Amino acid sequence: MRVSELSVESGVAIATIKYYLREGLLHQGRQLAATRADYDDSHLRRLRLIRALLEVGRLPVAAIKQVIEAVDDESLSVHHMLGTAQYALGPTIEPEPGEEWDAARAQVDLLIGELGWDVAPTAPTRDELTQTVVRLGQLGLSTDLTVYAQTAQRLVAEVEMDTVPFDGPREAAVEALVLGTVLYGRAFDALRRLAHESESARRVGGVPKNVDGSGQPG
Amino acid sequence: MRVSELSVESGVAIATIKYYLREGLLHQGRQLAATRADYDDSHLRRLRLIRALLEVGRLPVAAIKQVIEAVDDESLSVHHMLGTAQYALGPTIEPEPGEEWDAARAQVDLLIGELGWDVAPTAPTRDELTQTVVRLGQLGLSTDLTVYAQTAQRLVAEVEMDTVPFDGPREAAVEALVLGTVLYGRAFDALRRLAHESESARRVGGVPKNVDGSGQPG
Repeated sequence: MRVSELSVESGVAIATIKYYLREGLLHQGRQLAATRADYDDSHLRRLRLIRALLEVGRLPVAAIKQVIEAVDDESLSVHHMLGTAQYALGPTIEPEPGEEWDAARAQVDLLIGELGWDVAPTAPTRDELTQTVVRLGQLGLSTDLTVYAQTAQRLVAEVEMDTVPFDGPREAAVEALVLGTVLYGRAFDALRRLAHESESARRVGGVPKNVDGSGQPG
Repeated sequence: MRVSELSVESGVAIATIKYYLREGLLHQGRQLAATRADYDDSHLRRLRLIRALLEVGRLPVAAIKQVIEAVDDESLSVHHMLGTAQYALGPTIEPEPGEEWDAARAQVDLLIGELGWDVAPTAPTRDELTQTVVRLGQLGLSTDLTVYAQTAQRLVAEVEMDTVPFDGPREAAVEALVLGTVLYGRAFDALRRLAHESESARRVGGVPKNVDGSGQPG
């Protein structure tokens, strides 16, 4: 198909498609003439993935480029490719060297070990969790995350990973992982706050429901 | 105590304390002379709460002001006060009128009803979840959030709400709710991505662990 059809089919503006081509995020089409190229389903799939990373994952273009490179590098296993995308979704954490950090990091590594999780020793997600454990400790909150970890494990093993098509095109697996990670994460966060409201109502509420549209809890 | 001691005890700079006093976030001290005032534990508690809302909750000052007003308004029940804080933590959602939105909203309301949750009909968290359901549907992903909701319920009822001191000073309850919501939310998000990596390794991994520090998944 021509670039104009590709634009219609993908919902991505022609100028944006040309930008992705220049940046190397989208592979070139088959050149038909000096100013005409032919695009196919692989371009559509790639544009879908870019949109997912950009709009739902909210990744910067530089990070999207890294993910795309991992998708294109067939020498990388599907697991490594997914890891590249997963790591790009997390925040960038600067470890804060010191006893406090080291103790929190040891606690994170111990937890992962106790659960028998197969996570790279160098996974940046370990640093991310370490930072939160440090913060919890500084604020005098419990740093025991066992129940959270067990809950995450159940959710991921029983529901989430089943939605990732490991056997299809590489783009499709990355897209499903990114969309699922972000959107179900967002859904869970809202559900957790809804459950908070309900549980709070049960424990200290008891006032009649407020239906005046003021947005106050019931 | 003097403002200088309050600054040392709270870790908040004097200039910042004066800014909070001007903005009405912090109540005035007992005036001893034209330029000297006396502060007590209630000011320390308030500064702790402001820091929690600002640094961990990342709320803008206008939202912090709303929360503080709810803390100060003793005519509001603890449940309403906590709701104000909880709602401030969520993103601001603009409903997108139309059939798609209405169907998603009905689905959210049905889910909350089926779970027997006591959530205000006007809770903005309903809109927040509705937006995610719309997005999931548009992207062809499952909008069945039952397992997520049940998981959130278990976590909140069995672990999370026990950390909120409902009977103490009003600031302490809000602070615990805000810190817990944000930090355990962040921890769960990281744990979920760690579980993803592990589950992916189990399903399609099988390559030896990479310990060269490249940050690639194992």
